[in-house]
Amino acid sequence: MAEPRLAEHAVDKLFIERTSPRSFTGEAIPDEVLFSMFEAARWAPSASNIQPWRLIYAKAGSPQWSGLFDCLMPGNQVWVAKASALVAFVAETHRRQGETRAENRTHALDTGAAWMSLALQAELLGWATHGMAGFHHDKARAALALPEDFDVYMFAAIGKRAAAEALPPELAAREVPSPRRHLAETVFLGRFG
Amino acid sequence: MAEPRLAEHAVDKLFIERTSPRSFTGEAIPDEVLFSMFEAARWAPSASNIQPWRLIYAKAGSPQWSGLFDCLMPGNQVWVAKASALVAFVAETHRRQGETRAENRTHALDTGAAWMSLALQAELLGWATHGMAGFHHDKARAALALPEDFDVYMFAAIGKRAAAEALPPELAAREVPSPRRHLAETVFLGRFG
Repeated sequence: MAEPRLAEHAVDKLFIERTSPRSFTGEAIPDEVLFSMFEAARWAPSASNIQPWRLIYAKAGSPQWSGLFDCLMPGNQVWVAKASALVAFVAETHRRQGETRAENRTHALDTGAAWMSLALQAELLGWATHGMAGFHHDKARAALALPEDFDVYMFAAIGKRAAAEALPPELAAREVPSPRRHLAETVFLGRFG
Repeated sequence: MAEPRLAEHAVDKLFIERTSPRSFTGEAIPDEVLFSMFEAARWAPSASNIQPWRLIYAKAGSPQWSGLFDCLMPGNQVWVAKASALVAFVAETHRRQGETRAENRTHALDTGAAWMSLALQAELLGWATHGMAGFHHDKARAALALPEDFDVYMFAAIGKRAAAEALPPELAAREVPSPRRHLAETVFLGRFG
């Protein structure tokens, strides 16, 4: 891994400064803030403009909160308890045309583009996001009442950053922006490797 | 579909103004511009910070160009011929630990986050991108020399925008920013639908 958060080429600070904290204030999130993030996700590109993503959300303290929160792994619940909102990222995996049903090969990739847009708009508004693959998949399918041909890929916690010290010690120690591989290990000219 | 490019909630213009044109000038792209885009992709979040994406690129006019260009469907080749660079988005689909091999469920989603970051950094630099699912999959696997446990999900053309009139008439007519569904059809409270 490279040094933490050290860019190798000039890039907008938006991309470097966006991180995925676990320490949140627990404050209420206004609808206009949350829907600004959803609006950013809306304009992501997708193959044939299918927009395969669906976003299912709940605000902390609302009647819908436990439905989403209970899907998370216990290790995530510890810190998500202080988040302001949860969003499940759901994708339409297949398309039907008449008798035929075919997988949309880019359904998850396109949904990731929507997720990134949401995360960056959150950053622009002074809020933070933290994506999670750690959830009970079958429980989430049921809790979110997903129809056939839809699948859930991740949850994101949204909140306002708080001090690392507000976390239990073992999580506080992890509240450090993560590094990335050097670009030379990721970007190749012409062919892999 | 909603009216073209009409936001329903306040959002940074970056997300609305990014579109996927087909008309490009064909001018050469400097390495510092291209690597600024790659750098943005580098900082995308991913499950367990695995960074499953790999980016394989070629600049127009280079010895590597035809290897990527020849993978595209003829309908895309018509306009990609005037792009400045092509990037194939490859993802590591599985992880091995000792004897076990397991799918990384978010490999494509995380790769989509990297793609979105690249596209937005391009927009910030005054360049444009256009993602494509229309390529020959097996041909691309071979041309890119992909190892086992890697797969290619999309290609993106990168270039400077040119006038729609520079395109063949049937493509010029499509050079209109695409709309999106209303948010009410995409964002749900608590459960699907």
